[in-house]
Amino acid sequence: MPSIAFLECSRCHARISAESPQTVCTQCADQPAGSLFVRYDLSHLQGTEARNAIAGDTGTTWRGMWRYRSVLPDVVPVTLGEGWTPMLQSKRYPGVVVKEEGANPTGTFKARGLAMAVTMARHYGLKKLAVPSAGNAAGALAAYAAAAGIEAHIFMPHDVPFANYVEAIAYGAKVTLVDGLISDCARIVNERKQQEGWFDISTLKEPFRIEGKKTMGYELVEQLGWEYPDAVFYPTGGGVGLIGMWKAFEEMEQLGWVKPGKRPRMIAVQAAGCAPVARAYDAGANVSQMWQNASTFAAGLRVPKPYGDAIILDILRASEGIALAVTDEEILASILDWARNEGIFLSPEGASVTAAYDKLLANGTLKATDKVVIFNTGAGLKYTDVTAEAMKLQRP
Amino acid sequence: MPSIAFLECSRCHARISAESPQTVCTQCADQPAGSLFVRYDLSHLQGTEARNAIAGDTGTTWRGMWRYRSVLPDVVPVTLGEGWTPMLQSKRYPGVVVKEEGANPTGTFKARGLAMAVTMARHYGLKKLAVPSAGNAAGALAAYAAAAGIEAHIFMPHDVPFANYVEAIAYGAKVTLVDGLISDCARIVNERKQQEGWFDISTLKEPFRIEGKKTMGYELVEQLGWEYPDAVFYPTGGGVGLIGMWKAFEEMEQLGWVKPGKRPRMIAVQAAGCAPVARAYDAGANVSQMWQNASTFAAGLRVPKPYGDAIILDILRASEGIALAVTDEEILASILDWARNEGIFLSPEGASVTAAYDKLLANGTLKATDKVVIFNTGAGLKYTDVTAEAMKLQRP
Repeated sequence: MPSIAFLECSRCHARISAESPQTVCTQCADQPAGSLFVRYDLSHLQGTEARNAIAGDTGTTWRGMWRYRSVLPDVVPVTLGEGWTPMLQSKRYPGVVVKEEGANPTGTFKARGLAMAVTMARHYGLKKLAVPSAGNAAGALAAYAAAAGIEAHIFMPHDVPFANYVEAIAYGAKVTLVDGLISDCARIVNERKQQEGWFDISTLKEPFRIEGKKTMGYELVEQLGWEYPDAVFYPTGGGVGLIGMWKAFEEMEQLGWVKPGKRPRMIAVQAAGCAPVARAYDAGANVSQMWQNASTFAAGLRVPKPYGDAIILDILRASEGIALAVTDEEILASILDWARNEGIFLSPEGASVTAAYDKLLANGTLKATDKVVIFNTGAGLKYTDVTAEAMKLQRP
Repeated sequence: MPSIAFLECSRCHARISAESPQTVCTQCADQPAGSLFVRYDLSHLQGTEARNAIAGDTGTTWRGMWRYRSVLPDVVPVTLGEGWTPMLQSKRYPGVVVKEEGANPTGTFKARGLAMAVTMARHYGLKKLAVPSAGNAAGALAAYAAAAGIEAHIFMPHDVPFANYVEAIAYGAKVTLVDGLISDCARIVNERKQQEGWFDISTLKEPFRIEGKKTMGYELVEQLGWEYPDAVFYPTGGGVGLIGMWKAFEEMEQLGWVKPGKRPRMIAVQAAGCAPVARAYDAGANVSQMWQNASTFAAGLRVPKPYGDAIILDILRASEGIALAVTDEEILASILDWARNEGIFLSPEGASVTAAYDKLLANGTLKATDKVVIFNTGAGLKYTDVTAEAMKLQRP
C-alpha cells in the first residue's frame, strides 16, 4: 500500500496534508469548499506487471476490494468482506452486465466507501463519527464503526426502509429518525458536530469514502479484462461512486493499466421525484438547485442537492454522458421485469438504471451492441417493505 | 468439468445412471429410500497441480463457486454470482473465522444448492419445479428458476420471514403459504407432484443440491490454505450443507488436494424449539423422531425431521462431532453481541452457531486456540421482521 502524498482540492487544487483528519478544502476562497481527493506517488506501479500482480496475489484467500490495496492508503483495513462483487451477464441483453453490489456487507455499495473511511478514522484515532444518510450509508457506517469499536451517530429520514433502521439499531449505533430529508439530517449533523465532538463522515465531506468507492472502477475494468465498457449506468444520489470510478479511470490511465481508448460514457440516473442533477444537466448548469418536495421509493435517490453536484456534472460532460430521470412506476416495472426474466432482484435504485437503459436503447442513444455496465447498488432484499408497498403486496 | 460416472445411493450403494433426472434411490429395499450422491472419475485431477490451477484460473473474471467446476457436472451453469463468499476473521476470538454466506444471491447459502440443481433441471429439460421450504430455499429456487425460464411452485409456512414471501412473488414463482411447517409443505408437494407434472427439488430428494453445497467444503479448505480447521459449526435444518461438505472432504482426500490430517469435527446446531437431530444424537439413535410443535424464530431450523437425519448423524459421529441446541433467547443475544462487537449482522440460524460456540468454549469441549469455521448461512437483513419482533423493536 502506498503512502498518501497529499490531499488535493477538487475545486481550487490546493494541496493539504493527510497527516491529520481532514474534512473539505480549507483553502477554497468560495463556498461550498471543494472535496478532497487522495493523491499518491504511484510511479512504482507503472505498467501491466504491477497490475497483473493483483490477480496473481489473490492466492487462496479472499481479499475483496483490498485486492487493490496497492492503490489505497497504507493502513490496516477494517474489513467485513466488501468488494469483488459478481459481474452478471444479462440473459436478454448481450451488451449488458450487471455489477451486483448487493453482495456487499450490509447489502449495498456503501460498504466500500465506509470500510475505507472508517479504516482511516481508526487510523487517525477518531472516536465518534456522525452521518446524515438516506439509509444505506447509515447501515454501513454502523457496521464498520461496530467492527472498529467507534461510536456511530446516525441521522436518517423517518421513512427509510425498515431494514436500515433495524440494522443500525442492531449494530449499536445512536440512531435519530428525522421528520425530513437527508438534507435536513445533514443540517442537524452540521449544527451539533462541534459541540458533540463528532467527526462528520458525510458524502464528499471527507476524502476517503471516494477512495473506497473508486474500487468499483478498478473492479469493473479488471472484470472486463482491463478494458473499458462503452457506458456505465449509475444511480446517482450523492454520486460518490461515479466520482470514485472516474478517479479510478484517471489513475489506471496514468499507470498504463487500462487499454488505451475512450473512457466510458457515464450515465447518471435519478428518480423523477428527485432529479436535481438531471435538471441541471438539461439546463446546461454547472451546479444543481435544491429539489423541492423530493419524493421516491428509491430511498437512496432522495438527495435534493448532492454536495458533489459540480464534480458530477463535469464528469458527465467530459465523458459525453448524460443524466436522466425515471418515474417510480418505471422503477417498479423494471424491478419485476428483471426479477421475473433474469432472476435478479434489484434495489429500486438499481432498477432506475435498468429502466433508463431501456429508454436510451429505445431512443437510439445507445446501441444493443454497446458494452454497458449497470450498477445494482443494493440488494432488493433490503427494500422488501417499500417494494412490497409499491407492489401493493401484503402478507396474506 | 467432468462427466458424471453414476449416482450412488447413500444407503444401499446402488449405482444409478444420471442420464435422466433422478430423485431418490430406486433400489433401496427399505424406506425411506437413500439420497443419491454424484460420482465422477476424477483421476485426471489427482495432485496439487490440478488443485492449484483453481486459484490460477480465476484470472480477471469473477467465478464464484464455479471455480470448482472441475469437480462439478459438465453442464452450462445457471448462475447469479453464487459462492466464493468472504471468510471473516473474528475480532475477539482468534480461532474463529465466519464464512459469510449472506453474500450469496438471495442472501443465503441456499443459492449454491439451487444454482446447481436448477442448472441440472435445465440440462434435463425439466419445465416445472416444486419445493417445500422453510423460506430461503424458496427464494433461491424462485430466483434460479426465473433465470432459467422454468416454472417454480413453492410451498412455505405462513409465518416465514416477509422477505421470503416478497422475493418469491417478485421472481414470479407460484407461491402457496401453508398453515403448518415445512413437513406439511412437503406432504402437499408429494401429494400433488405427479398430477401437476412437478419435479420435486426438495432437500436430499434429488442429487444436485448436495453438489452445489459441497462447494462450501472446497471453499473453506481453500480459503484456509488447503488445510482443515479443527471444527466446522453448521446450523442444521435439512443438513444438506453438512452432508455436502463431508462429501467435499472425501473427494479432496481422494484427490490429494488437502493436507493429510484429521477431518474437522462437525458441530450441528439446532434451536431448542426444534432439535430432532440433537435429541437423536444425545439418545445415541441412528435416525431422528418427528419433533412435535416445532417453534423458533430461526425459520431455517424449523425442520421437524430432516430427510437426511441418518446421514447427518453418521457424519457427526465419524467426525467426533456433536449436535446441540440453543434457545431463541440465546440466539437473539448472540445476534446483538456479534452485531455490536464485530459489525456482523447474523441470521438467527448463524447466531445459533455463535451461541453454541460460546457454550462449547465455556464447557471445555473446544479450546480458544482451536481453529473453527462458523457458518452464517444467511444475511441478517433477510430477517429484519422476525429479528425486530424478537428485539421488540418497532418503527418509531
